[in-house]
Amino acid sequence: MSFRTHAAGAAKARLLPFEYEPGELGPREVDVAVTHCGICHTDVGMVDNEWGVTKYPFVPGHEIAGTVAAVGASVDPARLRVGQRVAFGAVCGSCMQCEWCESGKQNVCPKRVDTVMRGHQGGFATHVRAADWRFVYPIPDAIASEHAAPLLCAGTTVFAPLLRQGVRPVDRVAVVGIGGLGHLALQYLAKWGCEVTAISSSRDKEALARELGATNFIATKGTDELRKAAQSFDFVLSTVSADLPWDDYLGILRPQGKLCIVGVPERPIALAPFSLLTSEKVVAGGIPGSIVETAQMLAFTARHAIKPVVELFPMAEANEALDHTRQGKARFRAVLVA
Amino acid sequence: MSFRTHAAGAAKARLLPFEYEPGELGPREVDVAVTHCGICHTDVGMVDNEWGVTKYPFVPGHEIAGTVAAVGASVDPARLRVGQRVAFGAVCGSCMQCEWCESGKQNVCPKRVDTVMRGHQGGFATHVRAADWRFVYPIPDAIASEHAAPLLCAGTTVFAPLLRQGVRPVDRVAVVGIGGLGHLALQYLAKWGCEVTAISSSRDKEALARELGATNFIATKGTDELRKAAQSFDFVLSTVSADLPWDDYLGILRPQGKLCIVGVPERPIALAPFSLLTSEKVVAGGIPGSIVETAQMLAFTARHAIKPVVELFPMAEANEALDHTRQGKARFRAVLVA
Repeated sequence: MSFRTHAAGAAKARLLPFEYEPGELGPREVDVAVTHCGICHTDVGMVDNEWGVTKYPFVPGHEIAGTVAAVGASVDPARLRVGQRVAFGAVCGSCMQCEWCESGKQNVCPKRVDTVMRGHQGGFATHVRAADWRFVYPIPDAIASEHAAPLLCAGTTVFAPLLRQGVRPVDRVAVVGIGGLGHLALQYLAKWGCEVTAISSSRDKEALARELGATNFIATKGTDELRKAAQSFDFVLSTVSADLPWDDYLGILRPQGKLCIVGVPERPIALAPFSLLTSEKVVAGGIPGSIVETAQMLAFTARHAIKPVVELFPMAEANEALDHTRQGKARFRAVLVA
Repeated sequence: MSFRTHAAGAAKARLLPFEYEPGELGPREVDVAVTHCGICHTDVGMVDNEWGVTKYPFVPGHEIAGTVAAVGASVDPARLRVGQRVAFGAVCGSCMQCEWCESGKQNVCPKRVDTVMRGHQGGFATHVRAADWRFVYPIPDAIASEHAAPLLCAGTTVFAPLLRQGVRPVDRVAVVGIGGLGHLALQYLAKWGCEVTAISSSRDKEALARELGATNFIATKGTDELRKAAQSFDFVLSTVSADLPWDDYLGILRPQGKLCIVGVPERPIALAPFSLLTSEKVVAGGIPGSIVETAQMLAFTARHAIKPVVELFPMAEANEALDHTRQGKARFRAVLVA
């Protein structure tokens, strides 16, 4: 059976129909019939060859929800069976035998299989193949598939740092950027028990941020609100891809506070030595979580009825949806529906 | 009684004799008769007004060992008594009632008393006053006073990050710079149970680094040894004040590895976003530890017979000793002897 997709033939090209034959299903592999696929900024960057690593034809899409279409011989039937509602994200396999995999950190396995890298094709398609069934997550009944899809990249990217950086319910926290990632981070941190501040350039999204769990709001553009918030936060999560004035963001940290960066700025992150050193501050990078962390994210999301705010597009309008995201118009995640 | 000191009257000036009257001893204060005072690069920077905050006349010296000369009314006699051998460092008091002090993090108290800042005078003197007796540490019998002095800044600065950053004996670690701080860090990390690599510009200090506990050595200048060490370390401690090629140092970290910076570079620390993000790496600032961490440092130093390598100068030769440090000639710590 061939997989019918929407693929870019060259950098920044319009997606066109493209079929490929995935070959025989390996023992650990799983084919998923796509029902929904979220659009991440990384998909746009890969289509546009922003990082110079894209191979064409390229099928974007790494926020995938659907149903199991076929399972390899060694897939545990107690966890996955044909027809089951499942989701998978930016990583769809790893070696499962290196130090990192064996210590439960599959997301940093040097042999991990990235869903839309190195020739692996993504979820703008009728079907997509996961390299290892353990990265294909059953969707809890409480989560709709259109919501599960964006959780698998946007959700896990903002959730995993809470675990990794030891964020505690007594902490005062801030989320920079109220977009695809940030609007989920606000919900997670509120349900985590924290006092949550939303930071955005303007006040446009203030009402929404408060609905999502923020109790405070800082508008940065043309105000001195950021300066006034000096030494306010134990944990700041930056979800934006902008080049922020990083020292100001170190400045709003309390002593021993942590700035975790999950959005990818264009230019180097420059930190004044004294801003970093004098109160033992920390700057950390964040990426989607491990297998168990991702499962914990799904369970936490279901238990607290956390929902991504999505805009649905028919799969046939993949180009329009991609442009919508490219232009920064998504409120807050465009999701393709098969 | 007046305190007789060696003080700078202006930026970069030669130290001259200077006497001051410390005033009545407050209830929490302690006067120490100085027997030894180490010289830190910060002393040079303060004499030279490198950070624009020095008030003159300025008495340097914040690595102080001596004997208790007088104690305030509320000092616990079970911990400090006149004549006792003691040491104190860069912080000699804090409010003891803020959130940070009450949670044992006196080193980040916003009201902490820095020994050579904001008009407080240091230990290039017959006597020096500590603002709070709890920051005056009894010297363990196993530690000579000439060694205790540099431990109180150089020692605690490299020791505290091992506690704060959760360095584990199974970790692979590296120390950048084999100087006043680095030569102690090598010893601490070796006794911590880690596999230790010393990183220096040339091979000049290789034999010494190995004596101090390094099992591996990387020379960076004109070699590709740093590149070859990619993804080697769980923890890298940078003790140098040079502007390092930071991405190369993120590069030698293993996934989730931590780069802790305790040396103060001149220019902003610039990090490529992908170097930081893709494997959840961390960059942290470090400073001297809290009261309990400093006491733990002294106990650990005594128990493992760790010794700073010092060069002794008579107090009367304070200018020569300061120049020796200014010129980077100290091997590895100049210590003034009263």
